[in-house]
Amino acid sequence: MKLDVIPIHVANQPPGEPGLSGNAPPLLREVVEQVRRLIESGEPSAIDLSALPLTPADLDWLQEKLGAGEIAVTLQASGESTLNETACPGVWWVTHRNEQGAVNSQFIEVAFVPELVKAHPQDVALGLETLEFMIADRQGDAD
Amino acid sequence: MKLDVIPIHVANQPPGEPGLSGNAPPLLREVVEQVRRLIESGEPSAIDLSALPLTPADLDWLQEKLGAGEIAVTLQASGESTLNETACPGVWWVTHRNEQGAVNSQFIEVAFVPELVKAHPQDVALGLETLEFMIADRQGDAD
Repeated sequence: MKLDVIPIHVANQPPGEPGLSGNAPPLLREVVEQVRRLIESGEPSAIDLSALPLTPADLDWLQEKLGAGEIAVTLQASGESTLNETACPGVWWVTHRNEQGAVNSQFIEVAFVPELVKAHPQDVALGLETLEFMIADRQGDAD
Repeated sequence: MKLDVIPIHVANQPPGEPGLSGNAPPLLREVVEQVRRLIESGEPSAIDLSALPLTPADLDWLQEKLGAGEIAVTLQASGESTLNETACPGVWWVTHRNEQGAVNSQFIEVAFVPELVKAHPQDVALGLETLEFMIADRQGDAD
């Protein structure tokens, strides 16, 4: 049997980068499509990286290609979440950790603002009530 | 002259809190008005704390009253800016520092999302071009 007839699956992977599955480049093309959709229609989207067959090397490769941006968000809520802008504005690398600091899930979110950063109107209304109560309380003190 | 006719300006300040100018409580009431406006009309606003006669004790008092929220944003752009959610959702404490780390200005921003966190459409479009170029380049390699 000649070696050149063995059906080798050549993944879409540059030579010399061990650990890559070949799944990262198509994902990057998907991100490009999502950014285009964001610009054209304002529609945000997200890719659940935890749900895809990606190796640690794939994730490193994606992070390196997307680069690092200027904005980093941390959210403390039963574990820390980080939402880091990449060098491509509108593309955010989102990591959710549990209370022990282990990664629960990772997403690439394509949006003008990550959903979790937005204050929700009902929460703002509740906060307003608290503030109003605090002020009424102070005015009572001053009387 | 009797002491009780000396016109003493009694600042709106609780007893026993030294360093307070009396300017912080009216500011807190202004924040309440701004939050109400945000809920009613969606209109964001900001108070430039650097432009007001506030003492360090006033700023501490305001920060303590507003409390700390779950979200902290840092932005690196010729000096670090921090945009921290307060315990009142929609109210953000914004501090801009210069490259040496000194505070340049401070704001209370009332908004669902602080303006600086939003990716701007023209920047997203530029980022898309860079991504598309990167992918085209990779496909050239693979051919």
